[in-house]
Amino acid sequence: MVRWEPGARERLQAAALDLYAAKGFEETTVAEIALAAGLTERTFFRHFADKREVLFARQEDFQSGFVEHIASGEVEGPPLAIVAAAVIAGAAFFRDDRLPYSRHRQGVVDSHPELRERELLKMAALAGAIAQALRDRGIAEPAATLAAESGVTVFRVAFAQWLTPGSTRSLADVEREIFQALQSLTAAASLTR
Amino acid sequence: MVRWEPGARERLQAAALDLYAAKGFEETTVAEIALAAGLTERTFFRHFADKREVLFARQEDFQSGFVEHIASGEVEGPPLAIVAAAVIAGAAFFRDDRLPYSRHRQGVVDSHPELRERELLKMAALAGAIAQALRDRGIAEPAATLAAESGVTVFRVAFAQWLTPGSTRSLADVEREIFQALQSLTAAASLTR
Repeated sequence: MVRWEPGARERLQAAALDLYAAKGFEETTVAEIALAAGLTERTFFRHFADKREVLFARQEDFQSGFVEHIASGEVEGPPLAIVAAAVIAGAAFFRDDRLPYSRHRQGVVDSHPELRERELLKMAALAGAIAQALRDRGIAEPAATLAAESGVTVFRVAFAQWLTPGSTRSLADVEREIFQALQSLTAAASLTR
Repeated sequence: MVRWEPGARERLQAAALDLYAAKGFEETTVAEIALAAGLTERTFFRHFADKREVLFARQEDFQSGFVEHIASGEVEGPPLAIVAAAVIAGAAFFRDDRLPYSRHRQGVVDSHPELRERELLKMAALAGAIAQALRDRGIAEPAATLAAESGVTVFRVAFAQWLTPGSTRSLADVEREIFQALQSLTAAASLTR
């Protein structure tokens, strides 16, 4: 019989992050994470496939949110407008009270090459899922892929700015600004002389 | 004393690609690649760090070419114009006589998840190197990263189209078209309503 541990997932995430920051990612074992969270290894593996996934588990929900927003058809219009609306709506996923956790998490990811790689691959998967959602709405290539990749680039740049110490704007506001920067950039004439 | 084997690098690449296509990437050993190329394992490791690198070795030269083109200052203008010029100049790297090799290579990469991952990471490294080259020319963030990521996206989409069986246009022409598609996409109004 499996006991349900309330808040187990969040406790494991917090414990893992503290240990990765203190000891390094390589040196931390799942047994130590479980112990620090007051849980068993078995509970750990009920929630996460491995110790890398602890830091990326929320991205699955994040990706589903994006894809559902696009699939809902709530926003009509050109492909990049659909993507921009989904990116900005997705900002609600990163509430301001998550900012300390997100900053801490990013510091750990950035200082471990294998975690940075995992993050890049997750972002590539996100772009692939968005492109598919756009094609499912009848948007042709190359527009679907260009819009999806541009949306993920804007998200990544905006997210990094939002995490910058001292930054006080909401993620959605930063995203709006970065979308406008992308528009100005591509509006510059004679790209292909 | 190290003997110089003329064309060793290209022979190893061709032999590796044939074996990966025939037996699968996992199942192929460096010893088999060397044997098929009529060379020793030692020669293999003089050219490539491991059996994945055989398929990605040219990307290092490709990346240097991009960065040098941007650093040369030959093209003035807005950031994305500088990047577009470098991407289009870089098309010369993929001569039409390399098309059969490139198609074969891409088929092998696409059918092996670990090779696809390596390719994504190489593309991310390319975007990072381009962004750095732009910052070295005094272009500020977020323009440097947005222009670099957009350039790599255009390259990836154009390269995939160029490899499509039956496609007869040059890579540079496809790239010009995809840059224009990106411009139309971002020119669409009210991205951030």
